[in-house]
Amino acid sequence: MPDSGPIFERITLIGVGLIGSSIARAVRAKGAARTIVATARSAKTRERVRELKIADQVAETNAAAVKNADLVIVSIPVGASGEVAKEIASSLKAGAIVSDAGSVKSAVIKEMAPHLPKNVHFVPAHPVAGTEFSGPDAGFAELFENRWCILTPPAGTEQTAVERLKLFWETIGANVEVMDAEHHDLVLAITSHLPHLIAYNIVGTAADLETHTRSEVIKFSAGGFRDFTRIAASDPTMWRDIFLHNRDAVLEILSRFNKDLDALVNAIKAGDGQTLFDTFTRTRAIRKSIIEVGQDTAEPDFGRRQGTGEEVAIPRPYASD
Amino acid sequence: MPDSGPIFERITLIGVGLIGSSIARAVRAKGAARTIVATARSAKTRERVRELKIADQVAETNAAAVKNADLVIVSIPVGASGEVAKEIASSLKAGAIVSDAGSVKSAVIKEMAPHLPKNVHFVPAHPVAGTEFSGPDAGFAELFENRWCILTPPAGTEQTAVERLKLFWETIGANVEVMDAEHHDLVLAITSHLPHLIAYNIVGTAADLETHTRSEVIKFSAGGFRDFTRIAASDPTMWRDIFLHNRDAVLEILSRFNKDLDALVNAIKAGDGQTLFDTFTRTRAIRKSIIEVGQDTAEPDFGRRQGTGEEVAIPRPYASD
Repeated sequence: MPDSGPIFERITLIGVGLIGSSIARAVRAKGAARTIVATARSAKTRERVRELKIADQVAETNAAAVKNADLVIVSIPVGASGEVAKEIASSLKAGAIVSDAGSVKSAVIKEMAPHLPKNVHFVPAHPVAGTEFSGPDAGFAELFENRWCILTPPAGTEQTAVERLKLFWETIGANVEVMDAEHHDLVLAITSHLPHLIAYNIVGTAADLETHTRSEVIKFSAGGFRDFTRIAASDPTMWRDIFLHNRDAVLEILSRFNKDLDALVNAIKAGDGQTLFDTFTRTRAIRKSIIEVGQDTAEPDFGRRQGTGEEVAIPRPYASD
Repeated sequence: MPDSGPIFERITLIGVGLIGSSIARAVRAKGAARTIVATARSAKTRERVRELKIADQVAETNAAAVKNADLVIVSIPVGASGEVAKEIASSLKAGAIVSDAGSVKSAVIKEMAPHLPKNVHFVPAHPVAGTEFSGPDAGFAELFENRWCILTPPAGTEQTAVERLKLFWETIGANVEVMDAEHHDLVLAITSHLPHLIAYNIVGTAADLETHTRSEVIKFSAGGFRDFTRIAASDPTMWRDIFLHNRDAVLEILSRFNKDLDALVNAIKAGDGQTLFDTFTRTRAIRKSIIEVGQDTAEPDFGRRQGTGEEVAIPRPYASD
């Protein structure tokens, strides 16, 4: 944390959903910028941001919002980012850093970069953090604590701009990694996009069941299904855009997934218990690694409180394995 | 809760893992039986159960354990249940209720029923509850609170025995539903078995990646993947047996899942955003229903504390939808 004051004089947040509103809250909590300007496409969201008082100013348009900003972060469904770049291009201050928070990076670069003037620094970013909730009320200042933020500066980006954005994200709690946009898109296809596709799909399959069975699925969801429904409750517009804009990487990972699934299914059909056992044993090690690097809680069932209104204390270490 | 004293004089738990040890703890907490006898296949587990003092007696063999028991609950991987039925058959008390806690019911009935004497009541059961942890240390008395326990008595089972087992499960916190074993196996194939197969598979796909990418997957797992790793950390022996013993229902549900996935993939390939948006919107309703019926917490991210050792407070209602 710099004692030397805020990292940016004036930052502008375009889009104030879960991510944008969490950035606003975190920036204020950490003093990472002197002035926070926010804007959103809908009048309702802008009004809500005013009520929540999470920004110093709320602007009516994207172009007005970015005036004099030192950092602009676009946190909207990725399909809309090209249009926003076009809208703000002529209002950006020379030397400003323009960034985003999209879950897909190659497509965002392709869609935003051509519109941006040469005298700004374009440093795309993806904070790997979130919940299944959406909108300005869903954000919280701690969202990025101990989470990763991946920067994917295009070739030729000025290193000082990358360093400054890195310091910004570190100041609001994140760990920062810099990588190539294509590599980002492949890694995230595995860690995020395919899991969401699968979760949406399995919940969709259940939604299509006839009414009686569907109500039983809801009733007996504690056997594993309910976890998928949390992921499948994520924002539909955001996820529509992710799949449309990271198509190739998602399809590539999906084909590996299908090949592996065929092998598991063949083992089930053949009564090959050893293959099943071996697969199910290997996967446990990945879970342990994730807990060891601090990317998930070690508490059983995520430390989840049962849906009874009561809090049930279930702290326990890994047992017997 | 009956004021009239314990429901069973003497209950025997064969298998003292997560489920068996939770039953032991819940029975003692609620006074549901006067005497709890436990046994386990391994000497190490029996010793641990003695140390934990969660049973009144620890028996060395299954046959010895069931002597004079009014209720016997077999909580072991379902593949071993036929063998256990054979071992205990000649030691069971006339009029005893024999039950289990297996996640598959048709196969358990097929494997246990032929060995059991005519003068006992066989009432198979499946408490739909658990965590990703295993072993006697993983259990806790509240595991069954507000969870469902499904009873699947074969045709001709005496109703009084079913009612008594129902009262037992209700006493230790569960809601009870009675259904046909085949129907149970189909519903659980959707709510539990397919989700586990998919989770094991996707984590397995990640485990097969080359070392560098795998470490990135672990690092950036907060985007969704980490949820799957929790499920894929479940007990390998238990799950091997479930897939081998509920093969037909799992394959039936899997074929529906694959058909739906093909449709989603075709929408991605065709750039058909509307189909994606519609699917992702429908699935949100299922999540809400699950929370409404109290089968999951409404807190974002399961109320999960980030893996930092700190507790991060993030209570918030469903926002903006």
